Amino acid sequence: MFDIQAVSDEHSEKIQAVINGKTKPLGALGELEHLAKQIAKIQLTTHDFETPKINQHKLQLTHPHLTVFAGDHGVASEGVSIAPSEVTRQMVANFAGGGAAINVFSQQLGWQLNIVDAGILQPVLSSSVKAQRLGNITQPINQHAAMTKAQVQQGFAYAKQHVVEISNTGCNIIAFGEMGIGNTTIASAIMATMMNIPASEAVGRGTGISDEIVLKKQQVVEQALALHRDNLTDTESILRCLGGFEVVQITAAMLAAAENRMLIVVDGFICTAAAMLAIKFNASVKDYMVFAHCSGEQGHEKMLQWLEVKPLLHLGLRLGEGTGAALALPIIQAAVAFFNDMASFADAEVTNVT
Amino acid sequence: MFDIQAVSDEHSEKIQAVINGKTKPLGALGELEHLAKQIAKIQLTTHDFETPKINQHKLQLTHPHLTVFAGDHGVASEGVSIAPSEVTRQMVANFAGGGAAINVFSQQLGWQLNIVDAGILQPVLSSSVKAQRLGNITQPINQHAAMTKAQVQQGFAYAKQHVVEISNTGCNIIAFGEMGIGNTTIASAIMATMMNIPASEAVGRGTGISDEIVLKKQQVVEQALALHRDNLTDTESILRCLGGFEVVQITAAMLAAAENRMLIVVDGFICTAAAMLAIKFNASVKDYMVFAHCSGEQGHEKMLQWLEVKPLLHLGLRLGEGTGAALALPIIQAAVAFFNDMASFADAEVTNVT
Repeated sequence: MFDIQAVSDEHSEKIQAVINGKTKPLGALGELEHLAKQIAKIQLTTHDFETPKINQHKLQLTHPHLTVFAGDHGVASEGVSIAPSEVTRQMVANFAGGGAAINVFSQQLGWQLNIVDAGILQPVLSSSVKAQRLGNITQPINQHAAMTKAQVQQGFAYAKQHVVEISNTGCNIIAFGEMGIGNTTIASAIMATMMNIPASEAVGRGTGISDEIVLKKQQVVEQALALHRDNLTDTESILRCLGGFEVVQITAAMLAAAENRMLIVVDGFICTAAAMLAIKFNASVKDYMVFAHCSGEQGHEKMLQWLEVKPLLHLGLRLGEGTGAALALPIIQAAVAFFNDMASFADAEVTNVT
Repeated sequence: MFDIQAVSDEHSEKIQAVINGKTKPLGALGELEHLAKQIAKIQLTTHDFETPKINQHKLQLTHPHLTVFAGDHGVASEGVSIAPSEVTRQMVANFAGGGAAINVFSQQLGWQLNIVDAGILQPVLSSSVKAQRLGNITQPINQHAAMTKAQVQQGFAYAKQHVVEISNTGCNIIAFGEMGIGNTTIASAIMATMMNIPASEAVGRGTGISDEIVLKKQQVVEQALALHRDNLTDTESILRCLGGFEVVQITAAMLAAAENRMLIVVDGFICTAAAMLAIKFNASVKDYMVFAHCSGEQGHEKMLQWLEVKPLLHLGLRLGEGTGAALALPIIQAAVAFFNDMASFADAEVTNVT
């Protein structure tokens, strides 16, 4: 379904030599050096290293796109959130109106923002919202499978088509965000399944719930894990049992982005749950992923450790919408800029003592 | 010498109410919220809160300037660094030629970059380098005071004049960077003095020195601390005994920036040592400071903890030049952007359950 090429290590040493030749102490640009190397491995071909041309070894980030997928969750009616499901639609209307944090950051930083209705209670009538609806709301995961197999498959098809359209505009860096009251419960359930840990270690405060609601949320996740225990075998089954409409589409969109050799900027807790599922589906997708930030949601840091990845930003964000991914763009651009534009020791006639 | 107004808490509650009214869970923008509040306290006046005008409560960051101060250090000849002092001049020439990391990041992110020769072995003949030379090189701090009182005073005067000129261009956000072989030794000595800790806890690997050179560096710092023990009483004396020409000018430039109500973006280990001295000189300067990042230099995190501040970025940078400060600009701009442009719950008709 997704034809993803693993990123080759063939030119690793040559790429490292380019980085080490820049006028700076060895390794002094820290995480930016790892990032530049990852992007170079994705983008540079044998041709770049063999042809003696002036502009060889140039990386580029073109037409950054960020898509926010919104979905509603049956589990929200179990009392796991401080906000009612109606707020999902209100926030989608806010995205369409340009007033949310993700609008502001996309505008500031140069992301083309897309809003996708993956299945919310009541559609928002706006030309800014793309309908890829899998339903109105999922089933409560502690009572039923969240959705049917057909809904998962439809979500995969929608997301793949969406990413192909974006890729065709010339975009090579893409990020995803989410909105959906109840979706930290969903992500906690996915996290617990993937990492094989109890609900109590996966459940956090979401948008700021009380101790009492945290306990309720843990119970709901425990019930869901018990109910679906025998079916949580592969990505599509986990999504069918525990997923949300937006989580299904983000998972598939990540796989489609890797298929198109795009750099994938992974946002916070919910998007990282989707990333875990995408990696379970095809481990090579991870080569294309940049982890934007460590959020304030308690489980996120554990997820990142489990994935053995280092996030770029630590700003205590816990908003979702793709805001952490949006804010990481200038850091990623800085990695490309130093790789492309810094002088080498030889060019600048600086003594290289490293 | 510096007439710095402490930032008032008078409008704190009103500013917090603006932030809490934005369409997001309470506190969900993490560090960006603290940053927006700090900038609002610096920039907004009673007038902004009392006049019922459409554009009230707008923050702005205008004409960002970043000045790199370069200086040479007598202590470098004690064998504390992997590079010879000549590399300071080579790197200043690289700044003038546009090939260094700080050139690339300034260009990318919109900083106006200035290069100041605060006193390096041999001047670089370039119209891009502003001469504010206090000498060719300082005295080795483990044998003599680094410089004279007159040199410190001249450095303060140069730096103040430089910042006033920048302020007059309409700039309200300023950052400083440094270049100077040997200056992590200088910063370690300042750190040990300010925090009253032994040299072994303050000395790190700088640009990547061996265990053997680390020990030598610790000895040199211990010697310097012992030699000057009775004179390390105030900012100017500490600078005279342990300083560098660039550290003197950065310290004074920070004070001058606060006097002009500019936001000061503090870079890494050396600039934070200067910040500690500026705060010792006048504690109110701290109200204007944003700590850009926690560097890979081992002592930096301890300094930040001692100052009780939270840095914005954690990218393992250990390059200096102001690179960490440069990279923090889009994060600071994001804080201003959300404060100015996000819709409120009321505006967007989103249910506020917080």
